[in-house]
Amino acid sequence: MASVITLTTDFGLSGPYVGAMKGVILSINPAAQLVDITHSISPQDIRQAAMVLEGATPWFPAGTIHLVVVDPGVGTERGIIYAEIGNQRYVCPDNGLLDRLTLKNPPTRIISLSNSQHWASHVSATFHGRDIMAPVAARLSLGLDPAELGLPQDKLIALGWPQPKNTDGEIVGSVIWIDDFGNLITNISDDMLANLGFPRSLSVEILDHTIPTISHTYGDQPIGKLIALVGSSGQLEIARVNESAEAMLDANVGAHVIVHL
Amino acid sequence: MASVITLTTDFGLSGPYVGAMKGVILSINPAAQLVDITHSISPQDIRQAAMVLEGATPWFPAGTIHLVVVDPGVGTERGIIYAEIGNQRYVCPDNGLLDRLTLKNPPTRIISLSNSQHWASHVSATFHGRDIMAPVAARLSLGLDPAELGLPQDKLIALGWPQPKNTDGEIVGSVIWIDDFGNLITNISDDMLANLGFPRSLSVEILDHTIPTISHTYGDQPIGKLIALVGSSGQLEIARVNESAEAMLDANVGAHVIVHL
Amino acid sequence: MASVITLTTDFGLSGPYVGAMKGVILSINPAAQLVDITHSISPQDIRQAAMVLEGATPWFPAGTIHLVVVDPGVGTERGIIYAEIGNQRYVCPDNGLLDRLTLKNPPTRIISLSNSQHWASHVSATFHGRDIMAPVAARLSLGLDPAELGLPQDKLIALGWPQPKNTDGEIVGSVIWIDDFGNLITNISDDMLANLGFPRSLSVEILDHTIPTISHTYGDQPIGKLIALVGSSGQLEIARVNESAEAMLDANVGAHVIVHL
Repeated sequence: MASVITLTTDFGLSGPYVGAMKGVILSINPAAQLVDITHSISPQDIRQAAMVLEGATPWFPAGTIHLVVVDPGVGTERGIIYAEIGNQRYVCPDNGLLDRLTLKNPPTRIISLSNSQHWASHVSATFHGRDIMAPVAARLSLGLDPAELGLPQDKLIALGWPQPKNTDGEIVGSVIWIDDFGNLITNISDDMLANLGFPRSLSVEILDHTIPTISHTYGDQPIGKLIALVGSSGQLEIARVNESAEAMLDANVGAHVIVHL
Repeated sequence: MASVITLTTDFGLSGPYVGAMKGVILSINPAAQLVDITHSISPQDIRQAAMVLEGATPWFPAGTIHLVVVDPGVGTERGIIYAEIGNQRYVCPDNGLLDRLTLKNPPTRIISLSNSQHWASHVSATFHGRDIMAPVAARLSLGLDPAELGLPQDKLIALGWPQPKNTDGEIVGSVIWIDDFGNLITNISDDMLANLGFPRSLSVEILDHTIPTISHTYGDQPIGKLIALVGSSGQLEIARVNESAEAMLDANVGAHVIVHL
Repeated sequence: MASVITLTTDFGLSGPYVGAMKGVILSINPAAQLVDITHSISPQDIRQAAMVLEGATPWFPAGTIHLVVVDPGVGTERGIIYAEIGNQRYVCPDNGLLDRLTLKNPPTRIISLSNSQHWASHVSATFHGRDIMAPVAARLSLGLDPAELGLPQDKLIALGWPQPKNTDGEIVGSVIWIDDFGNLITNISDDMLANLGFPRSLSVEILDHTIPTISHTYGDQPIGKLIALVGSSGQLEIARVNESAEAMLDANVGAHVIVHL
C-alpha cells in the first residue's frame, strides 16, 4: 500500500494551516511520506489548481494519494469526494478541481465522503482540510477501504474549459494558464497542430504579434525573442526567450491565440 | 522515539540557509523525517511565528521536535532553549516564540542550552540555527536525553499579547494576525463569545463597519460580503467572502474589534 | 547507498513542474527521501543557484544526490552532467551551476550524460529536468553506477566570478549576492581580512557609507545601524540591524566594497 501523500493547497506559507494538516496526517500515520506539490495556488483559484494537478499528479507512483484543498465553499453544501483517476487517488472538495484530469481520463470510482467516523471528532466549519480531508487521506494511506468513506457518486462537478475551434486551416484557441516564467500556456494541443500539418511551418498570432514559426525549444532563438513552441505538457505555449512573454505582451488568461498555415 | 523534526524559520527561500540546516540534521540522523511548516515568516517577526506555532504544532504526533529559528538576537546574550509544552518538544531562541503556546499550556520542562559538546565544533556568530539548534534537534531525534543539553530554567521570555476587555455586554478586542487570504484573526475567543450569549445574535464592529451577525462559515454569505465568524483556531475572524478583508478595510494588526448584543 | 535527493530549481511554486519531477523520482525509487532546498531561484539565475549550492549542499550526508534544474539552455546543445565534488553528487545542466563549489574544491569526477537508456522513454524538448535529470537522479539513488550514464568529461563550464583585489593595506571587492533579509554578501573572505590584520580594527566603505569597524554579530549594534560582519559562510557581509541594508543603500549585486585599516 503506497504511503505517499501529496499536498496541493491555496493556503500560502505565512500561516499555520499547512503545518496543521501535516501534523494531523502524521499523527494518524507516522510513516506517511508527505510530498508538497504547492501551497501557492492563488486564493480560491480552482482552475489554476486543476492545471497543476493535471501536470503533476499523473507522474506519481500508482496508488499515490493526492490531498487537494482549494475550497471556497468550505462549510456549505458542496461535497467532499474520494476519486480514482488513472492509477492515482484524490481526496478533495467536489468543486471542479479534477476537471482537467478527467477531460482525458474519466474517473473510475467516486465516493462522496459522508461517514464522519473517519473524520476528526470535532469538525470546524472553516477548515475541512484539517478536520475531514487530512484524516481521510491518512487513513487511506493505512489501507482503509474507500467504500468505508461513504456512498458511490456518478459524476463530478465540472467547471467547463474554453475549447479551441478548428476551422479550415485555422485554430482559434486561448491562453488558459500563465506559469512563473511568464510563459503563456494555451488550450491548443500537439494533436490539433498535427492535424493542421505540423511540423509543416505554422504561424501563431497573439495580441497583435505574429510569430512566423513554431520553435523546438526556448534556446533556439536569441534572448528576448517572442516564440511559440509545444511545451512539456503537449500544449502550445507562447514564450519569450529567457524573459517573460506575459510582461512583454501584457497578456492575461483568456487572450486569443490563432494558428494557421 | 519519534523522528519527525519540523522546521519553522524566517529565512525565506532565495538563499542557502534552509538547505544548510536540513543538511546538518540529515548528516547527524539520516532517518529524521523533515517536515517544513514554513520558511516565510516575515523577517524577525516573532509574533507571527508564535501564532503559526500555536496553530500548527499541537497537531503533530507526541514527541515531535519543532526546530524554530526566528532569531534577531543571534550571537548576543539571548538564550537558546529546549522546552516541552503539551506533548510537543521545541528547540528555539528564548525570545517569546513559544508565548502563544504557553498562554494555554505552561511548559512542563525548560532546559537552557549550554553544553557545547552537542553543537557543531565551530559555531558561527550569525547562524546558530545551523550550528547549535539543528545539531541539538537531530541528536534529540536520536534519543539524546534533554538533561544533557544544559541546566533547567524556570521561565521563558514573555512577549505579552493584547488582551480583550469584557465589560457589561461588550467585548473590546483587536486584530492580532492577518493570514494569506486577508482574513483578520482577533484575540476574541469562542469562550468569550459564549459568555456574551453566542450563538445568540451578536454584532461586530471594526473600522467603521458593522457586521450584524456572526456567520457559521465563509460560504454562508454572497461573494464580496464582509462577515465575522469563529475560525478554525476558535478565534473570532473578520473575513470577506472569497476576497480579502484586509484589502477592503485597509486593516492592520492592532485594529480594534468590538462585539456586543 | 544514501537515498537523499535534494531539489534546487527556478520553477517557482505556482505550476506543476516541481510536482512532476518529484513524481518521476518516486515512481522510480519510492524510498527516495526528497528534500527541497529551494524552488525560488530567480528565473534562469545561474549565479544565485551557484551561491545557494555552495552554502547548502556541503552540509548534507556523504553521497547525497543534488538535482539542480536552472536551465535556460534546455533543448539546445548545452550538456547535462553528473559530477562529484567533495563527498557530494550533483546532476544538473553544464552551465556554471557548480562554479562556486568548484572554486574551493575541484570535481573528482565528471560524466557527460549521453546514455538515453536511463532517461524517460519520451524526452520533451523543454523539460529535461523531468525527462532526463530526475530519472537519472532516481536511478543513482538505487545504486546505478555513474559510469553507465555516459563518458567522462574533463572540465565544467565556468561562469567566472569577480575577484577581489588586495593591494597594500586595502581590499577592493564587490557584492555578489543579496539574501532575503537584505544582507549584502561580498566576495571578500575571512582569510583576506585576516591577511589585512583582522581582528585588528578595519573599516569598510560601500556606496558613500563608511562603517568604522567589523562587528561580531547583528545584535552588537542598535536597530537600524549599518554594520559589517563576517557571515555564516565566512564572507564579509554588509547588514542593517533588524532591517534591510539592500533597501537602505539601494544596493545591487556588483556594488564595490573597500576594506582598509
